[in-house]
Amino acid sequence: MAKVHNYSAGPCILPQEVFEEASKAVLNFNNSGLSLLEMSHRSKDFVDVMEEARSLVKEILEVPEGYTVLFLQGGASLGFLKAAYNMMRTHKKGGYLNTGVWAKKALKEANFMGEAVTVASSEDKNFNYIPKGYSIPSDLDYLHYTSNNTIYGTQFKSIPETDLPLICDMSSDIFSKKVDISKFDLIYAGAQKNLGPAGATLYIVKDEILGKSSVKIPTMLDLKTHADKDSMFNTPPVFSTYVSMLTLRWLKKNGGIQWIEARNEAKAALLYAEIDANPLFKGAAAVEDRSNMNVTFVLTDESRTEEFTKKLNDANISGLKGHRSVGGFRASMYNALPLESVQVLVDVMKTM
Amino acid sequence: MAKVHNYSAGPCILPQEVFEEASKAVLNFNNSGLSLLEMSHRSKDFVDVMEEARSLVKEILEVPEGYTVLFLQGGASLGFLKAAYNMMRTHKKGGYLNTGVWAKKALKEANFMGEAVTVASSEDKNFNYIPKGYSIPSDLDYLHYTSNNTIYGTQFKSIPETDLPLICDMSSDIFSKKVDISKFDLIYAGAQKNLGPAGATLYIVKDEILGKSSVKIPTMLDLKTHADKDSMFNTPPVFSTYVSMLTLRWLKKNGGIQWIEARNEAKAALLYAEIDANPLFKGAAAVEDRSNMNVTFVLTDESRTEEFTKKLNDANISGLKGHRSVGGFRASMYNALPLESVQVLVDVMKTM
Repeated sequence: MAKVHNYSAGPCILPQEVFEEASKAVLNFNNSGLSLLEMSHRSKDFVDVMEEARSLVKEILEVPEGYTVLFLQGGASLGFLKAAYNMMRTHKKGGYLNTGVWAKKALKEANFMGEAVTVASSEDKNFNYIPKGYSIPSDLDYLHYTSNNTIYGTQFKSIPETDLPLICDMSSDIFSKKVDISKFDLIYAGAQKNLGPAGATLYIVKDEILGKSSVKIPTMLDLKTHADKDSMFNTPPVFSTYVSMLTLRWLKKNGGIQWIEARNEAKAALLYAEIDANPLFKGAAAVEDRSNMNVTFVLTDESRTEEFTKKLNDANISGLKGHRSVGGFRASMYNALPLESVQVLVDVMKTM
Repeated sequence: MAKVHNYSAGPCILPQEVFEEASKAVLNFNNSGLSLLEMSHRSKDFVDVMEEARSLVKEILEVPEGYTVLFLQGGASLGFLKAAYNMMRTHKKGGYLNTGVWAKKALKEANFMGEAVTVASSEDKNFNYIPKGYSIPSDLDYLHYTSNNTIYGTQFKSIPETDLPLICDMSSDIFSKKVDISKFDLIYAGAQKNLGPAGATLYIVKDEILGKSSVKIPTMLDLKTHADKDSMFNTPPVFSTYVSMLTLRWLKKNGGIQWIEARNEAKAALLYAEIDANPLFKGAAAVEDRSNMNVTFVLTDESRTEEFTKKLNDANISGLKGHRSVGGFRASMYNALPLESVQVLVDVMKTM
């Protein structure tokens, strides 16, 4: 079977060797004679998986002392709510940088137990840039932002400067580049981009924020509940956590963040160069805010869409259709997408 | 490798053919050249999986018209909160039958947005029986119960009689026997017993309860959010939903609820008969409330524990240790555990 170049926006491509290992574990895990799927989450085999996954996150991202790593359920969508619940303080107000649909959904949840304040927004231009030069009110309990905006193809190139506690939804670019974790009070990320399959959500929590909320939090939404039980308060997403651990092993073995950041930059440079050089293509995001994860572009001559789409199909390139709110095309180039797949895409573009 | 007789309390044994099929899908799903783990949840391949899983639930459980089936994240632990949020009405009071740790955790969450009322409890005897003959106050918005209590080995043999809207946490006995779904307003169940691996939670919701809560509900906890989007409001637990679908196919193919109920009764009858006949063993739960899913028992002569444990190990029987709050032993005999595994256990008991 011909190789598929998988540009899916998430769930997305993961390393082939991870699929092979995971496939075996579904039949016989650790030579136990049992499938990973039928083992107790309290068994030593799985407790070891959870501990290795948590510890690989710390090692690969150079998480400083004083942070706890958790693998929970619910996706970033539940993270929006957890973030606000856990970070509300005396003002009962959270500040948000509104850079797209996901940022807006996060913002909405803060209004449930407090007040969401839009500190800056790029909605005026359909979120095709990252806001800059805004001022941040001081009567806020935290500042929340979305580091990479999959739909629009924008990405923060630096961490926002603020004295406020900082929360980041890093669902779509965590593990793609070096980040100074010490700047953050809370990071969360759905696994299904650079980390693993759908079903697990990663939290990196500064210990000192736990138990400090000014509002009452339901048990499962309180990050302290999960931190106190080493991410095993209730049955965790066993398989998704395991596959995340395998992906982290792959990342570490190949050279960690330094290696993947260089590879991601090379992939992005290759594709953006073609977009800028070829008159048929036009990037959808502001040049200085272009994402290395999701490259959005349109055809300058829409009548050639069918021809381009056919050539993509012929080259076994899948998942390139743009999100309906931007249109055009979107090449999601998560960690596991090889440079060769980008070369195949660029070669197709060169024929247009 | 010798066959393991897997009595794990959950996550637990699933059919071997399900593991084989799932293992293949991790490498190449539907002959697409892609792993199921790297496919978009919006792809036709996965949308078909979600729809088949939801429709098999309806078919196998004979769910009447007017109910919606959802596969969500968070486990029953998040279900405790969702149940209370979605079912609070004018009284802002929920009634609970307290039959153990899980029932108590469900009860606790109702106090977050309303008031939890303990209608009846078996805590006086460490939950070794199911309360009966209680009266139910009329100023309640609903009655909540836990149909099977894994830790104590008790199970409701009939649905509680009440005019109140009825909620049930069926995590540990759903799909094990025929149930009249029309009696319920809301059923929820963590997948990781009779349905599939950890990571998915099944909801069966009467449509008329949606959007009727007397309290404001955060987006992700509102069942209407998920019902309106056919269980795809956010990225669902893809792999766990898929494996649940495979398990439901297995159940249907073999004869559905009628077949599995007879098989489960045969397994329970075989084991309880040995417990009652052998003076070394004593059942932990009240006889009339004995669970067909989790059989709890103790040794009448504790000094022979080591000998029994060794014989269990020699026979490749795993997962029989009782929960710390009851002690002794617990044989969890979920749907996929074959009668032969119970025979092996009984044969070991007969040598004692």
